[in-house]
Amino acid sequence: MSDWSHQILAGDLRALARAATAVENRRPEAEVLLQELFPHTGKSKIIGITGSPGAGKSTLVDRFIHQLRGENKTVGVLTVDPTSPYTGGAILGDRIRMLSHHADEAVFIRSMATRGCLGGLAASTTDMAVLLDAAGKDVVLVETVGVGQDEVEIARLADATIVVLVPGMGDDVQAIKAGIMEIADVFVINKSDQPGAEQLEREIKAMQSLSTRKDGWVPPIVRTVASDGQGIADSLSAVRSFLERDSGKDRAVENWSMRLREMLRERLLERFTDLNFQAAAEEILARRSDPYTIVREWVERNAN
Amino acid sequence: MSDWSHQILAGDLRALARAATAVENRRPEAEVLLQELFPHTGKSKIIGITGSPGAGKSTLVDRFIHQLRGENKTVGVLTVDPTSPYTGGAILGDRIRMLSHHADEAVFIRSMATRGCLGGLAASTTDMAVLLDAAGKDVVLVETVGVGQDEVEIARLADATIVVLVPGMGDDVQAIKAGIMEIADVFVINKSDQPGAEQLEREIKAMQSLSTRKDGWVPPIVRTVASDGQGIADSLSAVRSFLERDSGKDRAVENWSMRLREMLRERLLERFTDLNFQAAAEEILARRSDPYTIVREWVERNAN
Repeated sequence: MSDWSHQILAGDLRALARAATAVENRRPEAEVLLQELFPHTGKSKIIGITGSPGAGKSTLVDRFIHQLRGENKTVGVLTVDPTSPYTGGAILGDRIRMLSHHADEAVFIRSMATRGCLGGLAASTTDMAVLLDAAGKDVVLVETVGVGQDEVEIARLADATIVVLVPGMGDDVQAIKAGIMEIADVFVINKSDQPGAEQLEREIKAMQSLSTRKDGWVPPIVRTVASDGQGIADSLSAVRSFLERDSGKDRAVENWSMRLREMLRERLLERFTDLNFQAAAEEILARRSDPYTIVREWVERNAN
Repeated sequence: MSDWSHQILAGDLRALARAATAVENRRPEAEVLLQELFPHTGKSKIIGITGSPGAGKSTLVDRFIHQLRGENKTVGVLTVDPTSPYTGGAILGDRIRMLSHHADEAVFIRSMATRGCLGGLAASTTDMAVLLDAAGKDVVLVETVGVGQDEVEIARLADATIVVLVPGMGDDVQAIKAGIMEIADVFVINKSDQPGAEQLEREIKAMQSLSTRKDGWVPPIVRTVASDGQGIADSLSAVRSFLERDSGKDRAVENWSMRLREMLRERLLERFTDLNFQAAAEEILARRSDPYTIVREWVERNAN
């Protein structure tokens, strides 16, 4: 095993930060490292936090960190922001309100953004969680910004997923809610001091009464006011109940299946970095060829 | 050329609907059809409409249809809903407010949702736009639901992209806005009769003053109140100005490059449908193997 791996396993922060950068930039040494570290993982719990924009996810995450640190747990935080493909790093970079934790060596915070069209954020997030696990973090919080398919996929890769909702949002948000309803292991109604919390809880319960989960789990609904710390301990104990249930193994198998899909997708596309997309696009625009023929030829050429 | 292709080129609605279903289900005959039709395309304009949840995108689309029909243009509408991976069709199905156009043979409306983990919605949307182009639609409106990376990618594939914003949204929405700022060819401030429209316009202008686009285009800002039809004609004429500018060719090349990437991604993953993800996940959980070794072996085996 390399010195680097030893340092990470020993909890060396600088070694960990360097590894995180290598993973993010998909450097070849990152894969060697991850492979070395993998047998030493499996101890930390990954908690995904997703929900509508404006639901107060970041404030919640901030409170979760405080709570977990109070229980003497070490924490890793990954902020996933696939809506900002244009910034070099993540747009929300080192978010100001998390700066308070930066002085705390037991908290490791990293923002992740998509880079380029072929970017596989789910694969990178998985790799990063493996790293944090190896570095001895007890809990890895994965916060997603936005509510698209990517975020849903990433939140699903967690051991437990919290879906954060707020009272009094409009119709479109209801539609989005329907999309993320089925990935919730725990519902958090944040800003629950605002009008409509009661009604929102009724709506969630109504949806839950319509269908039962394969694993029989009925996701608890916890009310919070993250801004003043209400309901934080309850949220985490709801997560703990979920993690301690009997069917955890099935979920872990399902999770790794999905993670493998993402990693495969990533690896496949890496082999096609030398294609001349622009020249092909010009052929298409001139109607000298068509995209179906071009792509078929690319795939066939690469298969041989 | 097949009878089916002839029928679609002649504008036969039933043949078109059948083709749309074949494309959505990724049936092999769809590719043959698309390849036959492709030389007859390139006439219609694709307009992407994206923006925050609750911004009133659907109402806008509805008004655009009315306006375009008034100009005697034929219209195709694709509603892309990647946030609902769990429904067989799209969650918003045949959206009620669009039913008024269903009787109009010159309007073809289709909802699209993601199916399964390896789903390539961007590729399917491109294929569907090719179909509608071949069927003689003058304009194809692509409305995305939600604001994730997928939606951004799909909206970018259009010939012109409208980003819809509304006054008075919170912090997270501002963050999302930053993510979609750079794909806007036209900004629409909808619900502009609400407080904050002025300020939002100033914010957009402030962002625009910070950076200039490669193509020199300064996206116009149009205020609308879609619910009573205000600003609809102005929005479309802003789009028209964009489509008629000199640098349209560059954008078309860039668009087809991105579309090719999506199609390639799609085709590559199709070859891996027989992998046993579950067995692999169990090996990983038992730490008998690691995901990096497994994926590398899959890729290598398939390459030979």
